[in-house]
Amino acid sequence: MKTGEVRKILLKEKLDAVILFNKSPMFQYFVAEEFDHGMMILTRKANYLFLSPLYAPKFPGFKVIQWKRFKEDLQAFIRKNRIRKVGFDASNIYLRQKKFLSKLFKAKDVGDQLVALRETKTPEEMARIRKACRITDMIFKGIVKNFKSFKKESDVAKYIKVTALEHGADMAFPPITASGKNAVTAHHNKDSRINKGFMVLDFGARYKGYCADMTRTVYVGAPKIKDLEIYSKVLRAQKSCIEKAKIGLNCGALYDHAVKMLGSDAKYFVHGLGHGFGVEIHEAPSSSPKSKDTIKKGSVITIEPGYYNPKTGVGIRIEDDLYFGKLGKAEVLTKSTKNLIIIRR
Amino acid sequence: MKTGEVRKILLKEKLDAVILFNKSPMFQYFVAEEFDHGMMILTRKANYLFLSPLYAPKFPGFKVIQWKRFKEDLQAFIRKNRIRKVGFDASNIYLRQKKFLSKLFKAKDVGDQLVALRETKTPEEMARIRKACRITDMIFKGIVKNFKSFKKESDVAKYIKVTALEHGADMAFPPITASGKNAVTAHHNKDSRINKGFMVLDFGARYKGYCADMTRTVYVGAPKIKDLEIYSKVLRAQKSCIEKAKIGLNCGALYDHAVKMLGSDAKYFVHGLGHGFGVEIHEAPSSSPKSKDTIKKGSVITIEPGYYNPKTGVGIRIEDDLYFGKLGKAEVLTKSTKNLIIIRR
Repeated sequence: MKTGEVRKILLKEKLDAVILFNKSPMFQYFVAEEFDHGMMILTRKANYLFLSPLYAPKFPGFKVIQWKRFKEDLQAFIRKNRIRKVGFDASNIYLRQKKFLSKLFKAKDVGDQLVALRETKTPEEMARIRKACRITDMIFKGIVKNFKSFKKESDVAKYIKVTALEHGADMAFPPITASGKNAVTAHHNKDSRINKGFMVLDFGARYKGYCADMTRTVYVGAPKIKDLEIYSKVLRAQKSCIEKAKIGLNCGALYDHAVKMLGSDAKYFVHGLGHGFGVEIHEAPSSSPKSKDTIKKGSVITIEPGYYNPKTGVGIRIEDDLYFGKLGKAEVLTKSTKNLIIIRR
Repeated sequence: MKTGEVRKILLKEKLDAVILFNKSPMFQYFVAEEFDHGMMILTRKANYLFLSPLYAPKFPGFKVIQWKRFKEDLQAFIRKNRIRKVGFDASNIYLRQKKFLSKLFKAKDVGDQLVALRETKTPEEMARIRKACRITDMIFKGIVKNFKSFKKESDVAKYIKVTALEHGADMAFPPITASGKNAVTAHHNKDSRINKGFMVLDFGARYKGYCADMTRTVYVGAPKIKDLEIYSKVLRAQKSCIEKAKIGLNCGALYDHAVKMLGSDAKYFVHGLGHGFGVEIHEAPSSSPKSKDTIKKGSVITIEPGYYNPKTGVGIRIEDDLYFGKLGKAEVLTKSTKNLIIIRR
């Protein structure tokens, strides 16, 4: 995707090629598929994948070069194509890879320009993100339906993973399934039996390499009035931020709006308001405090205010995925109900 | 695990600490659990985890420092503990992480000494590897039992992933399920309906962070005599290598033995004979051609000769996981049958 834009960077920076290594997000972005192998060489003329003989010598959108002897074949390729000055992504390169490039080429960091390509999504990317969101919604429906069969937090996590696989997806990140007091830890990653109280369920499918990221908070047992009140407050803040979000808005201002809506409870809101996502679960723009990022046409972002009170043991987070297209305003991609679901036990 | 050994490296290299970042294999090795966050600081006095406030401030075996402001809190910690000269693992560090370290410390690469700790396994590690192997065996049994329900190669891969989850494990790497001519590609990673002929099934569970890695080749349809013959030849080579493997043996010599056993068919054997594994799927020792690695007491390695003939469209690989303990000889950890399983269609 957007390999045409790479040509512009090559011309502007007077580079012969951009070189990316497997497992880096920019590599994943350009192969536009889950593919975990090889070296990518994007030149002004063509897109090349340099693959080991263990892999099939075909890949859509690329000329594949299957090496027999890595070093010798790479050097022959470099000579033939007169590649001397190359760009790389310093934000996602291993030290040894950088050293390798610097031995062979004059290497320049063009990471910022490359990563910026991912800030706005193409229709092909949106199709995958929408599908990832739909699968995420289906999983949540299933969690609620099957909740009585879960004993431990890890049972819920396992259900999420298995259901994603059944829908042809996998996980954007390890699911967070935090019940009772565990929900006070925003990224709770241990296991316990399901405690009574609020339970934060933060998960997302990854479909053909593209993430979704949704959080719903349910209540296990019988909530008190003050539980319902604080849930409503977080939900009002979340909805108000969605209303306010639009193309051109500064993301730091959106964070400030969440803080304003949470009022005196904002001291229990310990993380950013949201983040872009795509092939990575955290991409630009960021709605952290003081962020200078802006919502653009084609941005996708999460909006996820939270409340984590260690004194009362109450943890709440509500998160949707938004897309900013022609409308200018947010289109909400995750459609699961945000009315508090109460699971009697 | 083996954090005591790190002290010796600190003393020998006159370092104040070893610093590791999350997602690097050495980090995973020392947390001895799947835990994907933070920075690890191993000093002569204690083991520290430097964690974000989003995570719980407890982790077994470590003193946890939960930062509020990352930079300021890290600098305060450094001053208090007088950390000036640190070691890092150059084989698995991002360029930006290295730059970060070099700003704060005098930084020295001690990667080789750190990675060497993983070459021999502790009893705790072996318990996890054994469990991963048992789960892998159970999955293979299930594949054979349920084979008639699979239509596509990806159906088998999905079954492998779901069954691993049901056993409390996940995947050591994306499963390879290559049928018919696809089996000629050693690391086939596309999908198709299940073709007749040999089908290579290469997969492994990951249990509490530790890998297994097994390959079995089954036959879909009715094999011809020459199919049975070449399968037997690969199997004989594999068994002979297992027989020959022992503590002290050079791994390059083991590769040579496989080539000798395969005789004129060795030209269709396109990869190394095997590799160590643990928290990573590929670790030392390596049984690649000309390897100078040696099997040690406590080593685990795979033995996996293969045959990939593009002319006949036949691909075969048979792989077991071996452990070298008190016996001196190989203990085979993966116990699935290697008699050719024929699935009539």
